[in-house]
Amino acid sequence: MSPFRGSIPFTQESTQFRFNVADQVANITFTRPDKLNALTFEGYADLRDLLHEIPSRGDVRVIVLRGEGTAFSSGGDVHEIIGELLKMHSHELLDFTRMTGEVVKAMRECPVPIVAVIHGIAAGAGSVLALASDFRIVSRSGKFAFLFTKVGLAGADMGSAYLLPRLIGLGRATQLLMLGDTISAEVADKFGLVSVLVEDEEIESQLNALVHRLVEGPAFAYAQTKALLSRELDMSLSGALELEAMTQALLMTTEDYAEFYKAFSEKRAPTWKGR
Amino acid sequence: MSPFRGSIPFTQESTQFRFNVADQVANITFTRPDKLNALTFEGYADLRDLLHEIPSRGDVRVIVLRGEGTAFSSGGDVHEIIGELLKMHSHELLDFTRMTGEVVKAMRECPVPIVAVIHGIAAGAGSVLALASDFRIVSRSGKFAFLFTKVGLAGADMGSAYLLPRLIGLGRATQLLMLGDTISAEVADKFGLVSVLVEDEEIESQLNALVHRLVEGPAFAYAQTKALLSRELDMSLSGALELEAMTQALLMTTEDYAEFYKAFSEKRAPTWKGR
Amino acid sequence: MSPFRGSIPFTQESTQFRFNVADQVANITFTRPDKLNALTFEGYADLRDLLHEIPSRGDVRVIVLRGEGTAFSSGGDVHEIIGELLKMHSHELLDFTRMTGEVVKAMRECPVPIVAVIHGIAAGAGSVLALASDFRIVSRSGKFAFLFTKVGLAGADMGSAYLLPRLIGLGRATQLLMLGDTISAEVADKFGLVSVLVEDEEIESQLNALVHRLVEGPAFAYAQTKALLSRELDMSLSGALELEAMTQALLMTTEDYAEFYKAFSEKRAPTWKGR
Repeated sequence: MSPFRGSIPFTQESTQFRFNVADQVANITFTRPDKLNALTFEGYADLRDLLHEIPSRGDVRVIVLRGEGTAFSSGGDVHEIIGELLKMHSHELLDFTRMTGEVVKAMRECPVPIVAVIHGIAAGAGSVLALASDFRIVSRSGKFAFLFTKVGLAGADMGSAYLLPRLIGLGRATQLLMLGDTISAEVADKFGLVSVLVEDEEIESQLNALVHRLVEGPAFAYAQTKALLSRELDMSLSGALELEAMTQALLMTTEDYAEFYKAFSEKRAPTWKGR
Repeated sequence: MSPFRGSIPFTQESTQFRFNVADQVANITFTRPDKLNALTFEGYADLRDLLHEIPSRGDVRVIVLRGEGTAFSSGGDVHEIIGELLKMHSHELLDFTRMTGEVVKAMRECPVPIVAVIHGIAAGAGSVLALASDFRIVSRSGKFAFLFTKVGLAGADMGSAYLLPRLIGLGRATQLLMLGDTISAEVADKFGLVSVLVEDEEIESQLNALVHRLVEGPAFAYAQTKALLSRELDMSLSGALELEAMTQALLMTTEDYAEFYKAFSEKRAPTWKGR
Repeated sequence: MSPFRGSIPFTQESTQFRFNVADQVANITFTRPDKLNALTFEGYADLRDLLHEIPSRGDVRVIVLRGEGTAFSSGGDVHEIIGELLKMHSHELLDFTRMTGEVVKAMRECPVPIVAVIHGIAAGAGSVLALASDFRIVSRSGKFAFLFTKVGLAGADMGSAYLLPRLIGLGRATQLLMLGDTISAEVADKFGLVSVLVEDEEIESQLNALVHRLVEGPAFAYAQTKALLSRELDMSLSGALELEAMTQALLMTTEDYAEFYKAFSEKRAPTWKGR
């Protein structure tokens, strides 16, 4: 647990999705399979709050984001979100769009690696949650649809117009965000959106293998890798080099760095402590 | 038409290329097929002025850029441009290079999507016009040559050293801009420079299909998608998220967003108004 | 030679690698094949100093970076670097990490193109030296391993968390930097890390061909292409367009630009002077 804790207890559960922490893995599983795991207002709010909290827990080494049933997530629920937004005032609309952006900000700034498991459709906000994750395990049935223009909104939702060009280049991002078409797992892989492309029946074994690596590995090193990858998108080369120099100097004082050398000298695998 | 109009009439034609607006499509067609549609000083100036003007017209939903004959455009005319530049003073040279950069700036800042149709060669300034477009329909005969170093200039012309790494990555951009070699449509597609790769005989049908979608679709949503894709290349994640939140909140007040919901509820396709 | 020279003589050799300048090519060859060309403290320092010096020499048109034996470079030597760092104070650690970052800064800011020849493994600092080069000639035996997390450090060393996403996109960069796995030449090529993929027996002929082009070509144009590619990663479109306009206007006053036109008019190949 982090040394800097106040008195507010950690969240134990959400009514919006299944949440638990076990063996240093935080599992967030969307549980509205009959609605293709469409998101609700409360679902966004819970994601935002949980993601802000997880870094302070200290007992989480990896976050797994997935959906029950045949889809990852179809995004904002048409009736429960779009229908309701149409009745709102401007300042309420902005409250909503800011909240959804805060989910993505929390995902990118959370030092814990996030693994999204994409089987079936990841559409709208669902596609952006996948995009903002660090790893995307995508099965052959996986599909992405940045479909915002198809509902009359900009193809620039929750940071997608910032993130997508930085993953797949401006040309392909323009095509996907402007037209909102669905792409297959294979096209997503060709474009660079897929970390691991798997057969549907391999999802669990591949997920377990990746989660195992992230849990057993040097957690502080992983956390700083993620932090710098995210921050250096907005930095100059000169600033990035100084940040990396400071980071590595700090990491060279950790037990894990010493452990690597000891293990190497003793011709054995290192046992990482994450500090 | 835009509500903010002065008294200056819109341009009806250019002596440098064929220009017309029909059915909400602005067609700009280079008409020097015997010169492979090489550009002249006046051609750049007309492109700059037209592209500045089109967003105010309000009757244009898509711009199509193409060339007559066997090429898209071979870029600046060797005799009419290079030969003349060699006689000029420094301040005139800068006037010229700034003008060419303004064409690209106008293309990227124009909220109307631009479709370039690339058959045959797109070389030099021609390749940058293609690069600065939003969609590139490229036929099997299409070729790109960022050939600036081959005429003794930097491979950094009209924003190419800014745009190309953001489309295809720094490594491949270095190769293309430093050496200036011609690449085939297939290589361009592999690199991410191609939106739609088509057979030569399919160009018209594929162009019509894309133009139809862009004309019939939610124009305001498309315009904001383009604007944010372009602007967020130069923004931090945090700023981008706020811009996207503001943008979507505004779009949620539009008739098109309400129309989507109404159409969805009535199980029919939406009829977009572009506002 | 540059017109701005002080009295300090140029470096003639290094005890850390073989260094020579011949026919306008600076060759830097790692010569510890029995250690897979692992780097030492002095090796980094010599690279930093040499790379700062080369732009002032004026007799170098291309830098070739390669390794003797079966590897490019396995990165920092485990015993001579990691073992020693574990004994150091914080300020010494920072001196080291800053020095390694300065090597990359010098590589990216050096106007002379750098060609890395990758056969066998390029690991750790070796993989970043390859990444920071302008061209990577990679043979089928070539492999990349950004293995920093495997020694307990952040996968953000010497600018890798800045550079890699800008070459291959954030998704693939996250995967490579977070996990530190080794990738083959083919995967590196798919990702966009490879300039020229060659059979092992073709390395010399392909290297000679590329070096020949860079030596014989318009050196000033090449230098400015590299400078702008590097600088414009950190610039806005608007600033980049102005920088390119100024650059091209200056280059239009060079002998090489006039020579292109003369050669074109006389239907012969230009003879470049690099000024």
